[in-house]
Amino acid sequence: MPPFSKTPLNIVRRVAERGEYDRKAIYEIVDDALLCHVGFVADAQPFVISSFHSRSRHTILLHGAKASRLLKHVKEGHPVCITCTHLNGLVMARSVFHHSMNYRSAVLFGHGHAIEDEDEKMHAFQVLTDHIMPGRWKEARHPNAKEMNATTLVRVSIDSASAKTRSGPVGDDEEDYMLPVWAGVLPVERRFLDPQEDARLASGVDVPEYIRSYHRGKRNEVGA
Amino acid sequence: MPPFSKTPLNIVRRVAERGEYDRKAIYEIVDDALLCHVGFVADAQPFVISSFHSRSRHTILLHGAKASRLLKHVKEGHPVCITCTHLNGLVMARSVFHHSMNYRSAVLFGHGHAIEDEDEKMHAFQVLTDHIMPGRWKEARHPNAKEMNATTLVRVSIDSASAKTRSGPVGDDEEDYMLPVWAGVLPVERRFLDPQEDARLASGVDVPEYIRSYHRGKRNEVGA
Repeated sequence: MPPFSKTPLNIVRRVAERGEYDRKAIYEIVDDALLCHVGFVADAQPFVISSFHSRSRHTILLHGAKASRLLKHVKEGHPVCITCTHLNGLVMARSVFHHSMNYRSAVLFGHGHAIEDEDEKMHAFQVLTDHIMPGRWKEARHPNAKEMNATTLVRVSIDSASAKTRSGPVGDDEEDYMLPVWAGVLPVERRFLDPQEDARLASGVDVPEYIRSYHRGKRNEVGA
Repeated sequence: MPPFSKTPLNIVRRVAERGEYDRKAIYEIVDDALLCHVGFVADAQPFVISSFHSRSRHTILLHGAKASRLLKHVKEGHPVCITCTHLNGLVMARSVFHHSMNYRSAVLFGHGHAIEDEDEKMHAFQVLTDHIMPGRWKEARHPNAKEMNATTLVRVSIDSASAKTRSGPVGDDEEDYMLPVWAGVLPVERRFLDPQEDARLASGVDVPEYIRSYHRGKRNEVGA
């Protein structure tokens, strides 16, 4: 897969060495995320809405209710920006100025269109479900005609994208290292707790292995 | 504090009963968040960039390097949308259609202006620092003239806002409760690990209590 071209749209200007244009690196950030923030413009007003998403090759699938303002707008083909961010650590420098965070963030630019074909729509439901919880599609009841009709599914092309990441230790000014101020990284992790079963669970149904052992993406790495 | 007025800008259309206009509830979501996603428009193109933030009364403070595209745009007074989202759980229903997430999300609309006054700028630095890590400002080296000059600080008015939340158990269709499908909530939590001290720490400097005992906002509540 060729990297994304650097253009005025996607170029990382600030701390350019933290910029990343490689598709694999960008897609990993997107795939590890459980939700994204979708930006769109209506009457010159920006809106940013959080949403589930799933990547399918070089596109992003979004879904929601037919009445959703976000999806109505996205499916009309207006430009969209989709951002996924992972916070990995608070970086506490000796100086206020050099405080930072360790993170991975991907910013995608594209245009959407509605998925109308019934088979493609069902497939998109499957991809979205298995993005959140691989194995779930095989088990849960599939959408019926009424549910399919009530749901808008949208595919957004990834026309351009870039990622920005920071990892590693504090970077202080040389003359500050002697200061008697604690410095270091406070790592942040997303953790899944024990599943809470529904009060009305049918008898004899155990927590499936794919839920019990659920995890997602990279674990925090020490100092990363 | 009066609630935000419901207008076409901020009204929650989909599942309207999940909408929230109370300032206290909205501000709590903002204050609990370590980062936000800022949306702005340039040449009809939406951009969504993640950023540290801090709330100061009815405004949001943002900061960054002078060359930052985001801040250049925000300080010019164009409309801005700032969104904070907390993911609290994956809601796994018996049907694919009723899968959902438990979350708290606040969407803010406003306009920015640059903070130019030196005292106000220093105060904004303090508020931002203590938002991320209360107690840090007292200890870390404060910004010098060069650092102040290299940093843009922006104040965004919160002209309008709303929040949307979901909590609680699965909601399945009545006829699906008998299905032999596991259903329930997989809680998600943000957790801080043990602080990693910098390799060049001055001797005799211990981890401060405000870092050792760091936590933020609400813990996950069972079923919430």
